[in-house]
Amino acid sequence: MRQRLSIEDYTTGILAGDRIMLSQAITVTESRLPADKELAAAILKEILPHSGNAFRIGITGVPGVGKSTFIESFGNYLTSEGMRVAVLAVDPSSQKSKGSILGDKTRMEKLAHNPMAYIRPSANGLFLGGIAKSTREIMLLCEAAGYDIILIETVGVGQSETLVKSITDFFLLLMLAGAGDELQGIKKGIMEMADAIAINKADGDNVMAVNHAISAYQNALHLFPKSESGFLTKVLPCSALMENGMDIIWALIQEYEQVTRANGFFHQNRQKQNINWMHDQIREALDDLFYGDPKVKTKLQELEHSVKEGKELPGSAAQDLLDVFLTK
Amino acid sequence: MRQRLSIEDYTTGILAGDRIMLSQAITVTESRLPADKELAAAILKEILPHSGNAFRIGITGVPGVGKSTFIESFGNYLTSEGMRVAVLAVDPSSQKSKGSILGDKTRMEKLAHNPMAYIRPSANGLFLGGIAKSTREIMLLCEAAGYDIILIETVGVGQSETLVKSITDFFLLLMLAGAGDELQGIKKGIMEMADAIAINKADGDNVMAVNHAISAYQNALHLFPKSESGFLTKVLPCSALMENGMDIIWALIQEYEQVTRANGFFHQNRQKQNINWMHDQIREALDDLFYGDPKVKTKLQELEHSVKEGKELPGSAAQDLLDVFLTK
Repeated sequence: MRQRLSIEDYTTGILAGDRIMLSQAITVTESRLPADKELAAAILKEILPHSGNAFRIGITGVPGVGKSTFIESFGNYLTSEGMRVAVLAVDPSSQKSKGSILGDKTRMEKLAHNPMAYIRPSANGLFLGGIAKSTREIMLLCEAAGYDIILIETVGVGQSETLVKSITDFFLLLMLAGAGDELQGIKKGIMEMADAIAINKADGDNVMAVNHAISAYQNALHLFPKSESGFLTKVLPCSALMENGMDIIWALIQEYEQVTRANGFFHQNRQKQNINWMHDQIREALDDLFYGDPKVKTKLQELEHSVKEGKELPGSAAQDLLDVFLTK
Repeated sequence: MRQRLSIEDYTTGILAGDRIMLSQAITVTESRLPADKELAAAILKEILPHSGNAFRIGITGVPGVGKSTFIESFGNYLTSEGMRVAVLAVDPSSQKSKGSILGDKTRMEKLAHNPMAYIRPSANGLFLGGIAKSTREIMLLCEAAGYDIILIETVGVGQSETLVKSITDFFLLLMLAGAGDELQGIKKGIMEMADAIAINKADGDNVMAVNHAISAYQNALHLFPKSESGFLTKVLPCSALMENGMDIIWALIQEYEQVTRANGFFHQNRQKQNINWMHDQIREALDDLFYGDPKVKTKLQELEHSVKEGKELPGSAAQDLLDVFLTK
């Protein structure tokens, strides 16, 4: 049985950078118990003025690309430069058999024991909406606890990368040389979302292949539309295993931050993210009200098949469901 | 004052391929009057079993790429092959100063006078949601009237192309050679949405540049993830002005249809589109209820600024608004 502390205990602890208090507060925000929800809201309200100061980096790539090794290597590089680093994961698939990417901290052994770093595996048993909410909140808590860089890891195969893009300042895509087969797993649209692409495993015999991949991708990206940020997507080599290239990637991210702070995109993007977050939560709550309604559920089952097969108009089915919902 | 006919008059007329009846029925579906809404729903219900038989093609590209000329040329090619062609436009920007792409039918003079073709400019004064609904409905009406091919034109600069992608079977992106400047206007993600890219203005001195562009794009697209359809995005040359390349584009589209019908994607995609359409309409109606509520409106104005600036938690602002909404 977990013991609840007072709001003050949590907030004072978090603001003092107490990792145990931070972990406990995160557990509270992830809880579904009504008493915890109230407590979480109160803690978040208190720490809000102290949040927002970290640089938020999303990191994605298909399984096998070396994400855990990259984060281990990049995280240790950042702490060696004097920064405090928090690592979060958005991994809805962990509900299934695959297991959480960060569930096994031993995959980031050095970082897990680094006093300047904080690793939080993703909560189990949450749907994407729940993960979105809790990841955003955990990010704010980590910021209030004084972390300078938030790394959010996700697998680039589902909807989670759109979510991570919507809560971060910079989106890094990890890839391997020899494009083709390993791309089968990645979702369309992710490459165009990336602010930078790092081609991993640039070591040993693979260096030539990586250099070739870099020029191929760089050429390809020139053909694609420019990002709203005004920053041209760059492709860089790295070897997470050999801890090579971390400095160059960090220099690029710093350049991105300078450019986007100077042209106003950084601030506008954060503002837009805040507003979208509010509307997302409203939409989610309305969805819950609607789709959670027992009468709607029954009617929906009835209609879904005929709509799918084009035997019922989607518009009139929607109207029928709304009528059922609004009739009390 | 427009006179309303009976449901039977409209449906019999549409099913007989009567263009005047089709146009009048479309006007009914675009109307906001409650009596028209009821009538439109009844007409759509009647024609529904006769819809769905056309192949639906979305066409996008930035202004200047030659969309109108392309549709004129492609439409005439299709009718010369014995197909009946309906041309619709999704153009939310027409509300602003720009003017509707298809507003001026003289830009497609030959097609406008082609008895095998039907051109319907987009309605004015509708928001994207309204356009989505009416375009989908107009498409069904045109199908019931016996059109074999639906061409839906849009400008690839806003949200309208996502909408067009979500209601069509095939998405064609028109581009020009000399990639760079003309891409500034196109939105990120659109290139990855395309099932094919046609490089227009492959005529005269420009042929070399077009061939160069084709190999560049084709190489670039190889680096990108495969589409769910199982069909590899192809890049083709055309000259809408000289009416060249229309046969090759049509052959490609036919190949796409064969492949996706054989692998089941065509059917699954239509089913998914129908289901999404229903849920989109539900979401839109819930949004209207929520954001149309006067108490919500007042409170939202109050909260929006502080959420934007990160002074109020998006989550708690959402909760406040929901409380206001649910208190009767």
